[in-house]
Amino acid sequence: MILGQGVVGPRRVNERRVWVNGQPVDERAPALSALDRGFTLGDGVFETMRARDGRVFAFERHLARLRRGAGVLALPLPPVGELERLVCGALADVQPDTWVTLRLSISRGFPRQRGLLPDPDAIPTVVLHRAPLVPYPADLYDRGVTAIVSAVRRNEHSPLATIKSLCYLENVLARQAAAARGAGEALLCNTAGELACASAMNLFAVFGAALVTPPLSSGALPGTVRALILEKLAPVAGLEPVERPLVPEDLARCDEAFLTNALAGVLPLVQVDGHPVGDGAPGRWSRRLYQILADVWKSE
Amino acid sequence: MILGQGVVGPRRVNERRVWVNGQPVDERAPALSALDRGFTLGDGVFETMRARDGRVFAFERHLARLRRGAGVLALPLPPVGELERLVCGALADVQPDTWVTLRLSISRGFPRQRGLLPDPDAIPTVVLHRAPLVPYPADLYDRGVTAIVSAVRRNEHSPLATIKSLCYLENVLARQAAAARGAGEALLCNTAGELACASAMNLFAVFGAALVTPPLSSGALPGTVRALILEKLAPVAGLEPVERPLVPEDLARCDEAFLTNALAGVLPLVQVDGHPVGDGAPGRWSRRLYQILADVWKSE
Repeated sequence: MILGQGVVGPRRVNERRVWVNGQPVDERAPALSALDRGFTLGDGVFETMRARDGRVFAFERHLARLRRGAGVLALPLPPVGELERLVCGALADVQPDTWVTLRLSISRGFPRQRGLLPDPDAIPTVVLHRAPLVPYPADLYDRGVTAIVSAVRRNEHSPLATIKSLCYLENVLARQAAAARGAGEALLCNTAGELACASAMNLFAVFGAALVTPPLSSGALPGTVRALILEKLAPVAGLEPVERPLVPEDLARCDEAFLTNALAGVLPLVQVDGHPVGDGAPGRWSRRLYQILADVWKSE
Repeated sequence: MILGQGVVGPRRVNERRVWVNGQPVDERAPALSALDRGFTLGDGVFETMRARDGRVFAFERHLARLRRGAGVLALPLPPVGELERLVCGALADVQPDTWVTLRLSISRGFPRQRGLLPDPDAIPTVVLHRAPLVPYPADLYDRGVTAIVSAVRRNEHSPLATIKSLCYLENVLARQAAAARGAGEALLCNTAGELACASAMNLFAVFGAALVTPPLSSGALPGTVRALILEKLAPVAGLEPVERPLVPEDLARCDEAFLTNALAGVLPLVQVDGHPVGDGAPGRWSRRLYQILADVWKSE
């Protein structure tokens, strides 16, 4: 067992791995043209997914969002069968019963000419990045996460607001500001002052039996877990899902609030800008919904 | 002379060339990590410049904007001396008296860990792309350019509005929509309905002796030619430079309007959404300012 560890030996499964257009590459190795429009213009879309035992959880939802995003950009996607084949190949050597993350990024690729207008026959660049799914610390679910309301306003009028494009810098800035103020996440308001979502998560607040989340018209990213909760998990838990605008002041008035995404699941939100959310402790509904979600993850 | 043409022979000068971190690379060759944050998140800044005889025009203005942008991102830039050395090297084999474009892109580089938060000690990726400066067709200056008012609203509240970040997809979408409607450019309004700028150009409108351009608070990109016109060229031409908000309706009321950037210089804007700007023909002030600018280009 000790012989060869870190020196020679079989390839460790579950390590970080990267494929570009289906070819495995070292994650640090040169792999993309320096003129790829994904790099020069943020011209592309991506999905971050969780997968286990050769299957991506909610793959259809991710593919549907990817297609919508590519449609907004008029970006020709590879055929779905090809994407499925890439993803299957990327999961082949993962240990059984082990979650990994998969990030699928598709850019408009190498441009024949400079400038903003894309070639109509551009050949997309497809990057697939697999990494171990490092669970969030268990005590984060017990303690809950703190957030700031970011000064970055999300433009709910932008065609990019409801797709996952490679232009993610506003979210980076919001997260940086949160970290600088000792908070774990950043909530982004839209230009009208309504809450939209967090830097990489969706926002929910519970008022009695109502589970409220900002509508897409507020600039909320159409998260896959958000959709799953609205369509299936909230009714199972006995909550009435409601899409309506929220403002920061609502977080002082709600019973509890939580954040969701495909990797973390459901994280209780306990404090915003130093003020308690609800009673300032993780609530029972966030725990309940996370349990239901974890069961769905296991059963699919 | 004929021997070897296109087969062997000396390296053609003035062709497209690319350097990554100072190393020459083939423009199509793999050169960037597939995980570079410039590609995955649009996490970086860029400048597009014109250069001739080993010198970049208005290099100080470009460097200052790059520094401001990097400051907004808390992105550590290489020392200015190093950037100057890279640029000088990239211009060394350009034929005398020949304009080229240089695009300098600096991303946050390869991340040690996934997620939005950057490594504090990230090593930036520096891409320099040189290409022949293909002049805009002369008759475009004689006929003028047409534009649409894009449905894409520029978020004047975003910290990205006044820097040139790698997140340029909204501009791409605006240009695509313009091309689909047979127009040469797209004007972007901000969320308040004020004109901000075009997809890759600044906007000016002449009213009598006043030369009006949207202020940065309207979401205008702080263009280098825009600044040069406001500070120096307008007074030389006998126009009074004014930064104040413009709305699309102003373009029907002005005497003339034009668009500016570092590559095109000054392009008359003659039609917006099918309606004439001024009398619908290129105006005398755009021609005059372009002459003055071309003289400055030549003399510097």
